[in-house]
Amino acid sequence: MVLCVRKEPSATTGPVLILGSGLLGASVGIGLTALDVPVRLRDTSPTAEALARDVGAGEIDQPEDPEPALVVVATPPDVTAGVIGSALHMYPNAVVTDVASVKGVILDELRGLADLDLTRYVGGHPMAGREKTGPAAATGELFAGRPWVVCPHEDTDPQAELAVRHLASDLGASPVVMTPTEHDHAVSLVSHVPQLVSSLVAARLVEAPEQALGLAGQGLRDLTRIAASDPKLWTAIITGNAEAVREILRAVRDDLDGLLSALDRGAEDGPLAVGAMHTIAAVMSAGNDGVSRIPGKHGGRRKRYQEVVVLVPDQPGELGRLFSEIGEIGVNIEDFSMEHSPKQKVGMAAVSVLPTRAQLLESELTKRGWKVVAK
Amino acid sequence: MVLCVRKEPSATTGPVLILGSGLLGASVGIGLTALDVPVRLRDTSPTAEALARDVGAGEIDQPEDPEPALVVVATPPDVTAGVIGSALHMYPNAVVTDVASVKGVILDELRGLADLDLTRYVGGHPMAGREKTGPAAATGELFAGRPWVVCPHEDTDPQAELAVRHLASDLGASPVVMTPTEHDHAVSLVSHVPQLVSSLVAARLVEAPEQALGLAGQGLRDLTRIAASDPKLWTAIITGNAEAVREILRAVRDDLDGLLSALDRGAEDGPLAVGAMHTIAAVMSAGNDGVSRIPGKHGGRRKRYQEVVVLVPDQPGELGRLFSEIGEIGVNIEDFSMEHSPKQKVGMAAVSVLPTRAQLLESELTKRGWKVVAK
Repeated sequence: MVLCVRKEPSATTGPVLILGSGLLGASVGIGLTALDVPVRLRDTSPTAEALARDVGAGEIDQPEDPEPALVVVATPPDVTAGVIGSALHMYPNAVVTDVASVKGVILDELRGLADLDLTRYVGGHPMAGREKTGPAAATGELFAGRPWVVCPHEDTDPQAELAVRHLASDLGASPVVMTPTEHDHAVSLVSHVPQLVSSLVAARLVEAPEQALGLAGQGLRDLTRIAASDPKLWTAIITGNAEAVREILRAVRDDLDGLLSALDRGAEDGPLAVGAMHTIAAVMSAGNDGVSRIPGKHGGRRKRYQEVVVLVPDQPGELGRLFSEIGEIGVNIEDFSMEHSPKQKVGMAAVSVLPTRAQLLESELTKRGWKVVAK
Repeated sequence: MVLCVRKEPSATTGPVLILGSGLLGASVGIGLTALDVPVRLRDTSPTAEALARDVGAGEIDQPEDPEPALVVVATPPDVTAGVIGSALHMYPNAVVTDVASVKGVILDELRGLADLDLTRYVGGHPMAGREKTGPAAATGELFAGRPWVVCPHEDTDPQAELAVRHLASDLGASPVVMTPTEHDHAVSLVSHVPQLVSSLVAARLVEAPEQALGLAGQGLRDLTRIAASDPKLWTAIITGNAEAVREILRAVRDDLDGLLSALDRGAEDGPLAVGAMHTIAAVMSAGNDGVSRIPGKHGGRRKRYQEVVVLVPDQPGELGRLFSEIGEIGVNIEDFSMEHSPKQKVGMAAVSVLPTRAQLLESELTKRGWKVVAK
């Protein structure tokens, strides 16, 4: 396969200094190095620093190196403000940005530090990540097509903001400008609260009977997938965004309390109490409405793809043959998921396609001997 | 593709009468018909009844038909007990079972009805379903490899229990015997509470700024997928299992309250208050522990597969070619997911394989010109 990457001249010229060479820092470094931007790296861990260099994220920063034009702070969120402050002091002409997933608390902390030229600081937050961490998991493609929130504040120099927007674009991301408050509220809603709620539900499984866990289906698996995330990193993120997280978490708790009182009333008045049913139905309907607002692939509202479900024996090559034949039929796969269940030796491959292509795909697959189970 | 289905003689001989021909009822009918078991259908909706017959779920029940040996009640859960009661009256020799997702409340209701021979009733709950409903979505493979909970009660005749276990096995499911109380607690934990929590989080999105929704990633999408479920059906399910749902939902609420007080304390004492961080970390760690208990594919504990992430251009045939080449390389795909993000024109295909096969797969794919981004 030839992946065509147009090598346009990057707007970022560097030199760029990256402080912290974990997943995000090293990925920024790899992406910029691929664009011929000179990149230097520094990390408190010599191992991480060397590993980042070895995966092509840049050169290790030396005392005699010239002042960077742009400093990217990619440390854990709880030390980010301090590192930004030092960088603003040490490099009096550089624009300084960061990639931390909280923004308000960092700006507040910076404002509390003395003698900082904050006109050169612009917060940033690329909405990209992986379940793996560290420089070994880094990739220059990490930011491709993802939103990159750019958070100028009242004193930001417009040129500094532009430099950070360029950084985002150069790495293939879509810059989205928000105030720190807007950002913190948004990530609380789409990321931090979902993370905590996933963990709360997964925590209920710790004491669950083995037999009960055997009944788990795809719904529970999807809901609790992110509950496997790193507690240390997430504790720092949640603590740093406590205000916005509290606000939304309280609203969830209030709705949950409403649901619990309805169930209590239902228990008193008998299982079919109309009031209780109304409350449950209202929560479910609000959920329907909310989920329909999440944008789908390629930036539009969630498209109504049609699912074609195909039985696939659990053997090497079968899934490959399925996809290969779908390619021959000439239908594009918009989404795909595999359903699993304990003891299942046959997989259910759910292939989402444009509704106008579903019938063709079904009939062609059936002709070729596949068992299509959806109608 | 040849799907080898061994046609063994079924333990269920019939005639089987299915009352309610929605997704589950029609799927039972299709599965049994394929095993040459005589099946009859009845539904309050003539359209659903006719459609179920047309998709091969059985013949429409006629007044002159002989008494069934087994009656499967597949109506919405809030009318199930009444229909079971009528069937026990009308067919004095038949074993009667149901497929409702609540069990205790149905048994209680039956015990409240006069003159019923409950020795012939055994509750059942196949842990299978689809996001689509109705007979058109029915398939005989719906139960393949899934758990089917069989709930005998104190007065159940062992022969009746055996008949329902046979039904489950004949349809390819794995019968799991539980008391109604064990069942209700288990499904509350793995299904009903996750459903409500998903809806509660999705409901927060109703009033969210468009810009915030644009930051949504895969985590939020996975967490809220089931929030798109049918409010009417789920209201009946939750109402019917109010007792067990309340118990677990209360535990979630208590943990949530603990988290909120920690965040409140954090807000008072400053962002780095150690107590608050400890509470958040404890919730996250419990989530880690809980999610690790969910059994993985093929019934074992979640295996540690290794993910190989490959960039795939968003064009027809590319995903097919990838799978086809993985098949040629001879590596079995244990799990697969596609990462999407707004505006992304290149997909990230995450292929999970046994750790011992990951290196081979990476090097072979790279040789063939694919861009592998994971290490």
